[in-house]
Amino acid sequence: MMNAIVLAAGKGSRFKSQDPLFNKCLVPILDEPALSYLVTALFNAKVEKRFIVVSEDSPIKKTFENENFVIQKEALGTGHAVQQCLAVLEKSGKTLILPGDCPTITSQVITNLIQEHDKYGSDITFLTMKINPDSKYGKIVLDKDGRVAKIVEKKDATAKEKRIDIGNSGVYLINNELLFKYIPLISNDNLQKEYYLTDIILLAINDKKVVRTHEVAPEYVMAFNDRIELEVVRQIISRRINEEWMLKGVTIENPEDVIIGPHVVLLPDTKLTGGVKILGTSRIGMNNAITGASYLKNASVGNDNKIESSNINDTTIGDKNQIGPFARLRGKTKIHENCRIGKFVEFKNVVFRSESKCAHLTYLGDADVGKDVNIGCGVVTANYDRVNKWRTTIGDRAFIGSNSVIIAPVTIETNGFIAAGSTITTNVKENDMAIARSAQINYENYSNVLMERALKKAKK
Amino acid sequence: MMNAIVLAAGKGSRFKSQDPLFNKCLVPILDEPALSYLVTALFNAKVEKRFIVVSEDSPIKKTFENENFVIQKEALGTGHAVQQCLAVLEKSGKTLILPGDCPTITSQVITNLIQEHDKYGSDITFLTMKINPDSKYGKIVLDKDGRVAKIVEKKDATAKEKRIDIGNSGVYLINNELLFKYIPLISNDNLQKEYYLTDIILLAINDKKVVRTHEVAPEYVMAFNDRIELEVVRQIISRRINEEWMLKGVTIENPEDVIIGPHVVLLPDTKLTGGVKILGTSRIGMNNAITGASYLKNASVGNDNKIESSNINDTTIGDKNQIGPFARLRGKTKIHENCRIGKFVEFKNVVFRSESKCAHLTYLGDADVGKDVNIGCGVVTANYDRVNKWRTTIGDRAFIGSNSVIIAPVTIETNGFIAAGSTITTNVKENDMAIARSAQINYENYSNVLMERALKKAKK
Amino acid sequence: MMNAIVLAAGKGSRFKSQDPLFNKCLVPILDEPALSYLVTALFNAKVEKRFIVVSEDSPIKKTFENENFVIQKEALGTGHAVQQCLAVLEKSGKTLILPGDCPTITSQVITNLIQEHDKYGSDITFLTMKINPDSKYGKIVLDKDGRVAKIVEKKDATAKEKRIDIGNSGVYLINNELLFKYIPLISNDNLQKEYYLTDIILLAINDKKVVRTHEVAPEYVMAFNDRIELEVVRQIISRRINEEWMLKGVTIENPEDVIIGPHVVLLPDTKLTGGVKILGTSRIGMNNAITGASYLKNASVGNDNKIESSNINDTTIGDKNQIGPFARLRGKTKIHENCRIGKFVEFKNVVFRSESKCAHLTYLGDADVGKDVNIGCGVVTANYDRVNKWRTTIGDRAFIGSNSVIIAPVTIETNGFIAAGSTITTNVKENDMAIARSAQINYENYSNVLMERALKKAKK
Repeated sequence: MMNAIVLAAGKGSRFKSQDPLFNKCLVPILDEPALSYLVTALFNAKVEKRFIVVSEDSPIKKTFENENFVIQKEALGTGHAVQQCLAVLEKSGKTLILPGDCPTITSQVITNLIQEHDKYGSDITFLTMKINPDSKYGKIVLDKDGRVAKIVEKKDATAKEKRIDIGNSGVYLINNELLFKYIPLISNDNLQKEYYLTDIILLAINDKKVVRTHEVAPEYVMAFNDRIELEVVRQIISRRINEEWMLKGVTIENPEDVIIGPHVVLLPDTKLTGGVKILGTSRIGMNNAITGASYLKNASVGNDNKIESSNINDTTIGDKNQIGPFARLRGKTKIHENCRIGKFVEFKNVVFRSESKCAHLTYLGDADVGKDVNIGCGVVTANYDRVNKWRTTIGDRAFIGSNSVIIAPVTIETNGFIAAGSTITTNVKENDMAIARSAQINYENYSNVLMERALKKAKK
Repeated sequence: MMNAIVLAAGKGSRFKSQDPLFNKCLVPILDEPALSYLVTALFNAKVEKRFIVVSEDSPIKKTFENENFVIQKEALGTGHAVQQCLAVLEKSGKTLILPGDCPTITSQVITNLIQEHDKYGSDITFLTMKINPDSKYGKIVLDKDGRVAKIVEKKDATAKEKRIDIGNSGVYLINNELLFKYIPLISNDNLQKEYYLTDIILLAINDKKVVRTHEVAPEYVMAFNDRIELEVVRQIISRRINEEWMLKGVTIENPEDVIIGPHVVLLPDTKLTGGVKILGTSRIGMNNAITGASYLKNASVGNDNKIESSNINDTTIGDKNQIGPFARLRGKTKIHENCRIGKFVEFKNVVFRSESKCAHLTYLGDADVGKDVNIGCGVVTANYDRVNKWRTTIGDRAFIGSNSVIIAPVTIETNGFIAAGSTITTNVKENDMAIARSAQINYENYSNVLMERALKKAKK
Repeated sequence: MMNAIVLAAGKGSRFKSQDPLFNKCLVPILDEPALSYLVTALFNAKVEKRFIVVSEDSPIKKTFENENFVIQKEALGTGHAVQQCLAVLEKSGKTLILPGDCPTITSQVITNLIQEHDKYGSDITFLTMKINPDSKYGKIVLDKDGRVAKIVEKKDATAKEKRIDIGNSGVYLINNELLFKYIPLISNDNLQKEYYLTDIILLAINDKKVVRTHEVAPEYVMAFNDRIELEVVRQIISRRINEEWMLKGVTIENPEDVIIGPHVVLLPDTKLTGGVKILGTSRIGMNNAITGASYLKNASVGNDNKIESSNINDTTIGDKNQIGPFARLRGKTKIHENCRIGKFVEFKNVVFRSESKCAHLTYLGDADVGKDVNIGCGVVTANYDRVNKWRTTIGDRAFIGSNSVIIAPVTIETNGFIAAGSTITTNVKENDMAIARSAQINYENYSNVLMERALKKAKK
């Protein structure tokens, strides 16, 4: 049985948050809580039993309600945190112990660590990484068989030991038998009065147990203690996601500036440019061009669309549509095929059928639009009466003249025509034209009269 | 006579494209096909005779219709590809052989290679670059005169040879005489059953020919096999373009995020900020500030303009205009001088003369606007009757009141005045005012009546 | 008495500016003149007496009118520049000499330099930095006490000296006594016929004076001579600013693409994403999310706001507002609390009180809006009569129907209701409804008639 103990009782004071509920393990990375990356990696590595050590009032419990929690009432160190778990662990089996703020570890690294541990029949295996040999960390000295011979403090190191550039990452795989034996032996006889989990390694070495290391690249054990390190970690995760999609056939220009969430799916021949963000459960099909500072969240996009400098939430887009620049689609909007939704256009909860066009400066809210409809420029559906939201229905091939406002609920039937500048309050039948506007009157030379008036007012 | 053979018969399977017509040499880099960079470098280095080796159905032939093509019917390796060219090459002269996916080479590098070749009276000169000595590539061993003594496979290398960090880039300059002699001798007696062009080097060395190398920085021979490498190559090309303009007097903030196409021209004292993209044949004059996520394609911009977060295609802009934020200009629009085109404004095929203003939320399409005109807010030209596009003409000093719609074709003459909220259907003469609106009626206490109705409807 | 001489008489010809008034010390970095960073660092390091050496017609004098200037009539070198200052310096005390194009130096570096100088009782201390040992610079040879023993030209250096990787940065702290003694001794007997300040070091060494160095990281003495180097310097300054805010509790995603001006203040738990620019005297409170390509200048933002892809100048925003995407606020606009200002909305000089909403496609200019007001979509305040700007006043709980235009000056009192599509020209009293629109008429089958007409016109 493989267990995991995730140490997540710290709050992250170096984040300088003023929010009393702040917890660094919940800081969003690509819109997902940081801890979710670690939990997912453990899940994918088939680590079935996961215990997250948290403080008593931790908000993590609510966010990760399907996980198991162990409460650490006092912050007395990592050794103390693990001690709280002995009650829930079985005496046999193995336990991975990981810091909760390490979202960069992957299921592959965890799987490799477990295999390495089993291959050598080890008692403890811990992840190491290249470090600057001048750093303050203890030196890990290996014997000729690759087992950890000792850990030397920098000040006690020989000249040769001082050049050791391998550091402990804080991720351990330990046989439970040792945990139950050594955890009670850890002492807090140090300056900080804390119980350190690392002491378990020293105990095991002294006990002639098999203690080995498994070295990984530093990016796989990168944790974060402040917002600069958080961003380092975010960039590592983003790079991995973006490069994975690039290798699968997605073109990304300036990938350093493209944000793709961990649950997003993209198909080949789609192109993203710098500044694009795609988050949530978005699904993006083939051969789309998504450009400008476009933002998509929970968007479902088909194939062959062009989306430019637009902001799209909770929207389904079919194939071969042209969206933007400067469009805003939201609220369960559904765009069918071959549509053009242009500049300064907002749709909220709209069904927009194939071949229809809405080229500029328009708001459609709660509307059902047929096929091959032409929505002019400056059209507004007035869907709100201070209490209710009402729907507008527009039939196939209808033409909505520019600058008209439709006071919902209204139905404009197939091939209905709304004259430009009209305020539409009642239904329009099939093939009919509706008009609601005043006749134009031209007043001779009146431009000058108005100008004189304006000038007079200015003088006052 | 200097010839070039460009090896472009591969498709680029690692791009994972689903498009049957996909070819990596046609992948756009800064909106131009990748291969065009190599062809331009050869052209600028005065390599007159260029043969591009392509597969039988290659889409490259159509895109580069002015180039010479040689068909390679089967993908039997680079040696085989060159063999297909023997029929079109003269027996004397020299031939450059380059991979088609190497857009990072410059005409300067090619010129230097040719000079180096001639200076030493070499038979073969090939480009080399620094590589990781641990990589799998064969080790190029030079004799004391700098000639290639042998090429050693890694497994056969001595300790000293193993430290060699110079690799073959795949760009060759070969005297034709050798090509005709050695190409027929290349064998496909290897695992892949391919004919490798590199064999020609071994043949020449054995034959005591003068084989030399010319080392360049890796960035000049960077080819691409997948979309991650494509982006590496794109960044190299973008950096060179951007740094060239910076040295010529253009200020670029965050140049890593600024896209400037290879055919764009910029004059000094213009400033671009991160996120700006300028493509196609755009010409940008002096002292412009182009900021935000502005996108310009085929734009001609004079001097002293301010362009902010705008999207501009096929448009000519004079001097001292203020465009945006959030403007969209397109379709052969022409802006004269000292104009202000503001927020959420779209122009399509508009002439907009000096000192005129169109500050917000307006669409002008197919319009001819005079000097010193004031277009109010929310003005729309209704230019489309479901069949035709009609023009609007607005004279000098005219005033178009806010929220008015002009149903084209309409002419508003000099100093014409359109009252706000009007729907204009007929012409307005010089100095006249046109109005088309209903009188305002105030209903006492009716706001409450409407609210009660809305509440009643909600209860239903 | 601590003096500073700032050498700013150069123009910066490698900037290739066409502006006759161009001066590289005035090039904006994060919207502030480059020189201001150096002046601020000196001020913060308590260097009271600052003399800036400029050419006679330098535009620096006007921009930095509170500083002291010394005119260098001819460009005869740094030694000559300092000589011009002898008339204003006291014979005792110490003088820092710095290049004017070094905005990357910090007050901490200056303070450390002064302390180091005093600690060793030095006569001259100059800043050094790591350089490439192969560069052309003279080699600084220290004796066993860390004093400068000699400066060797590269060509005269021994093998050991050739490996020296420490270079002179051009920042000196010199006892005035030495300045008065040595400056007159500097000769211009060299190829350029210039007087070099560095000669003073050689004179002092020969004179057995205490000459020491103080090494700093190269980023603290990075100067700029062209627009590529300007951007290097800008990125150093931006990184420092951004990392300082991150450590203070601000989350920044893609900080390389975030621009924060040196006078901006941010409070913890605010989040900025790539592409955001905050400049001028902006003050940003706690827990705001500012995203997309938002641009803020001189904005005052409270707490808990969401600002998306918006452009905000000279505006005050309270708490818990939702702004954008695609909003433009300017001209002393003031947003109270819990407001929603949405898509394609511009406010100019507007007071917008708590709980009010203006969701889309609206322009309010010179307006005073009460609490809990609902501004519909496509509303326009027509505030301009070609001469004057007029105000609109809207009372609490008013409802402005969509697509209405308000021709200012107009007052709509508390709970006033404007019917959609109305053009409002006169005041609306409390609880009243105003309407100004034509009745809708439906013409049977007229859509087809219009289509036939349009088709006929097309045939012509």
